[in-house]
Amino acid sequence: MLMAKVIGSVVSTQKDSSLVGKKLMIVQPVDSDKESIRFHQVAADTVGAGVGDYVLLTIGSSAKQMFQSPSEAVDAAIVGIIDTFDK
Amino acid sequence: MLMAKVIGSVVSTQKDSSLVGKKLMIVQPVDSDKESIRFHQVAADTVGAGVGDYVLLTIGSSAKQMFQSPSEAVDAAIVGIIDTFDK
Amino acid sequence: MLMAKVIGSVVSTQKDSSLVGKKLMIVQPVDSDKESIRFHQVAADTVGAGVGDYVLLTIGSSAKQMFQSPSEAVDAAIVGIIDTFDK
Amino acid sequence: MLMAKVIGSVVSTQKDSSLVGKKLMIVQPVDSDKESIRFHQVAADTVGAGVGDYVLLTIGSSAKQMFQSPSEAVDAAIVGIIDTFDK
Amino acid sequence: MLMAKVIGSVVSTQKDSSLVGKKLMIVQPVDSDKESIRFHQVAADTVGAGVGDYVLLTIGSSAKQMFQSPSEAVDAAIVGIIDTFDK
Repeated sequence: MLMAKVIGSVVSTQKDSSLVGKKLMIVQPVDSDKESIRFHQVAADTVGAGVGDYVLLTIGSSAKQMFQSPSEAVDAAIVGIIDTFDK
Repeated sequence: MLMAKVIGSVVSTQKDSSLVGKKLMIVQPVDSDKESIRFHQVAADTVGAGVGDYVLLTIGSSAKQMFQSPSEAVDAAIVGIIDTFDK
Repeated sequence: MLMAKVIGSVVSTQKDSSLVGKKLMIVQPVDSDKESIRFHQVAADTVGAGVGDYVLLTIGSSAKQMFQSPSEAVDAAIVGIIDTFDK
Repeated sequence: MLMAKVIGSVVSTQKDSSLVGKKLMIVQPVDSDKESIRFHQVAADTVGAGVGDYVLLTIGSSAKQMFQSPSEAVDAAIVGIIDTFDK
Repeated sequence: MLMAKVIGSVVSTQKDSSLVGKKLMIVQPVDSDKESIRFHQVAADTVGAGVGDYVLLTIGSSAKQMFQSPSEAVDAAIVGIIDTFDK
């Protein structure tokens, strides 16, 4: 999984039906020192994350299978809110 | 998912049968400030996107399963048109 | 999908049986201005592409499922020859 | 697989149920000279690894299927502790 | 697939049972001029490759399915030894 910070959301009216009702959050992947890495992505929230939260992001078929419908357009999902980074 | 801008399309006559009838759009992934990131890709459109639109791009098995045929050549699909980037 | 230029091929005698009979082409991914991006890869041809052709490359499970055998070693396949880049 | 060093762990209370009971370790991918490469990730431990251990990391559907539940949020797993790098 | 050079191996006693009996080779991905690209990885050998060999590397679900067990920890496999790079 990646660690990421939630920095916003996107609104999309014309979209695949499987995305309807999903919170599409803009996330900035970070390292364990909360420094930015990689690039912004959009992830479907599954745990009630909000802007400013540090979260766990899962990518690919793991993200898709967090949701029940077989033809799921999601390829990235927020699957946890990080309380602490212990190092 | 990635955020991207549609910048063109490719024409391919000699191609896998699963690509016939699909709009193959050239996309430039962007961050949430609409700045270019990564590299150009080709994605199959599923929502009627056009050149200049900012879109949601899904990659991998999620893209493949947006279409019904089992041996689907697609590994990237446009699954939404972005109305707004809220930050 | 990625856009790429076919720049050669590899010969491999000692290989997985699923690769027997497949044309293993060396490809250089490019952007829509035909500039090189990323790095060379090897892709199994499915449409009769030759050296110098610009092609559509699919990666991952989509590439694997272009072929019938379940334990398929392929993870990249050429699935179209690009006639034109329209921008 | 990637080689990586375990450098810490994350605590997440509000998370997908499939992550409950899993040790979520922060890992720094390394090359075979133990030099850092790529970026920090979080991986679910499956072999009792601890901070300071050099480990084998598997990514994607292979990681997901290390665990039994179908809707598994994991996309990275520690699958071995490296005794020696032989070059 | 990637082209790579086998540069060593790792020994891991405490590992997932699916890795037992597999030769875990350290590989350096290369381009078709045998120049290093990307980063070191570990791949399970399936064709009897040795240190110094140039090989074909498959990544992801294709690698996993080179082996029979469903919960397979492998995400990268050596699937061919390259005789020649023809350009």
